[in-house]
Amino acid sequence: MSDLLRSAASDAAPGSWLALTQGDPAGIGPETIVKAFWREPELMTGVVVVGQPEVLRRAARVVQQGRGGGTSTLPVVVLTEPADLARCPPRCLPVLDPGTAMPNGLPQWGQVSAQAGRQAADAVLWAARAALRGQVAALVTAPLHKEALHAAGVAFPGHTELLQAEAAAHAGVGLEAMPVRMMLANQELRTVLVSIHVSLRQAIEAVTYDNVLDTLRITQESLLRVLGRSPRIAVAGLNPHAGEGGLFGREELDIIEPAVQAARALGAQVTGPVAPDTVYMRARQGEFDVVVAMYHDQGLIPVKYLGVEEGVNVTLGLPLVRTSPDHGTAFDIAGTGRADPSSLIEALRMARRLIHA
Amino acid sequence: MSDLLRSAASDAAPGSWLALTQGDPAGIGPETIVKAFWREPELMTGVVVVGQPEVLRRAARVVQQGRGGGTSTLPVVVLTEPADLARCPPRCLPVLDPGTAMPNGLPQWGQVSAQAGRQAADAVLWAARAALRGQVAALVTAPLHKEALHAAGVAFPGHTELLQAEAAAHAGVGLEAMPVRMMLANQELRTVLVSIHVSLRQAIEAVTYDNVLDTLRITQESLLRVLGRSPRIAVAGLNPHAGEGGLFGREELDIIEPAVQAARALGAQVTGPVAPDTVYMRARQGEFDVVVAMYHDQGLIPVKYLGVEEGVNVTLGLPLVRTSPDHGTAFDIAGTGRADPSSLIEALRMARRLIHA
Repeated sequence: MSDLLRSAASDAAPGSWLALTQGDPAGIGPETIVKAFWREPELMTGVVVVGQPEVLRRAARVVQQGRGGGTSTLPVVVLTEPADLARCPPRCLPVLDPGTAMPNGLPQWGQVSAQAGRQAADAVLWAARAALRGQVAALVTAPLHKEALHAAGVAFPGHTELLQAEAAAHAGVGLEAMPVRMMLANQELRTVLVSIHVSLRQAIEAVTYDNVLDTLRITQESLLRVLGRSPRIAVAGLNPHAGEGGLFGREELDIIEPAVQAARALGAQVTGPVAPDTVYMRARQGEFDVVVAMYHDQGLIPVKYLGVEEGVNVTLGLPLVRTSPDHGTAFDIAGTGRADPSSLIEALRMARRLIHA
Repeated sequence: MSDLLRSAASDAAPGSWLALTQGDPAGIGPETIVKAFWREPELMTGVVVVGQPEVLRRAARVVQQGRGGGTSTLPVVVLTEPADLARCPPRCLPVLDPGTAMPNGLPQWGQVSAQAGRQAADAVLWAARAALRGQVAALVTAPLHKEALHAAGVAFPGHTELLQAEAAAHAGVGLEAMPVRMMLANQELRTVLVSIHVSLRQAIEAVTYDNVLDTLRITQESLLRVLGRSPRIAVAGLNPHAGEGGLFGREELDIIEPAVQAARALGAQVTGPVAPDTVYMRARQGEFDVVVAMYHDQGLIPVKYLGVEEGVNVTLGLPLVRTSPDHGTAFDIAGTGRADPSSLIEALRMARRLIHA
């Protein structure tokens, strides 16, 4: 389609519309969004940005300056509901304003503020509810800043916990009935984590039968949808050499192996526990479709090793599709025009694959 | 020099002779040794194999069969001391027999046995003492099998502990005065580990001020010799995001950071503690010469991720140079002729660089 844009939603039915949240307005999120619209017009068809029009207009100016100025612009078109996407003209940036007050005006680039945290959280809340109501098929989230969320009095440390709470409330169940896991994926590796943002000591405590089995079950169900077949799952051990038969720790024998047996009884195709230092190499060589990691860095070190530009986060276990880029707000380069949209673009591609699966 | 071999020691003074131990005779060690002599005749000049002549002759037959038989052979020449290397003819495999009894004959391929464990240990002991006496400049060790060592009544679980005990005895000091660390290196990464073969729980307990500072000191001294300049050292954190200011664990604040300050006061150029999930990517991109890892898999996952063929172990901290290939005895393919000598060859190259530094 190249530069000749059709209507922004012409080849996308409402059932494949995506909500793209702006992230912290003081970070690189808005800039990467504008760049994604410039670089991938076809991919962005059917995507509505959820955020403040002024924030996106400022980002469009930053990107335009980076392109050497000129007359070429990407005008913001303000929508009032996702259905307006069908009437949105081509060559524009469709923005849906969740209506957060901005008494302090636009936030300073790279500064933590309660207002920025509030704006970012409101966009995610709006998009989550739209996804749970079926108004959009998935959400893709630009990065938040944890301290800004905290300053805004948001009770959740990040996207995952906020989405889990919304989904549980929508379903009328408790959080414990809505277990959620993070998957990291790039072009050669997928890994699902038993735990994420806790100390390594606490991560060891989180290696329980229930947590490992929940992770295997969620991995099985999610990857079955993505791949259209039963995934070949590898489970990493917790200890060096997966404990070497109990010599370097017993979690493999006492916890992981029984959970693997239970997952097999449910029909999952699981190998392991496998020595952590070779399981990712084996997955990369094609032996497994996904690796279940026992803690944050076990999974993230190999996923990030070859460069973070194209890594994607996927939230598994919830009754909505959510993906995000594998980087933070990058306050140090916010507003400079140097942000790389590659990971955001991959997150959008991944969301499309997940809703079409 | 290609195929026209000179005397096996003609361009190598005794000061650069290497002892290459055969490893467990039921594993792939002897086969990889024979292949290294075939493939890299120049590199193998000045290398004496320490082991049983019959074990090496059997390995030479396996390799010859793999080469399609024929008349081309690599005869074993039995030496009685390293100095015999100077009179060893070309196109031969110089073997020094440490004299271990073999009442049961040659061991079965791929079988754990006390006799094989004894042979392997005696070769390492002989080579370690030769290195400590200055008869050879370094040792390169083919893989041992832990269970065979145990069956032979050897009190050490592996090479590192055995060499540490020999070096401490030679120096007349206790083990605590001879701290030793393992470095893993491949073509794009070097990492030194605070602890190795212990459970992850025990590895967390091993992250002490003294252990981290010893690791930094040993890394600084060893890499200074290898590189000829002060190395750029990165220290990984223990917890996700290096603890995020104490939010996910306090070891970075309470232990690692003070050890880093102390190492800097000793003149080391240290960055960190750095988030574990990005420190290896940054090292690979050239920002650091070496990464100090807090536990086994933190360092070994990235080193092995791109394939183990060319990884090398280096033992740091001892008054002798020792390197080894980054793989085990591979009992499943022992005797089949399919063993890959690449990692052993890299270990020999690394040993040469270390003794010439």
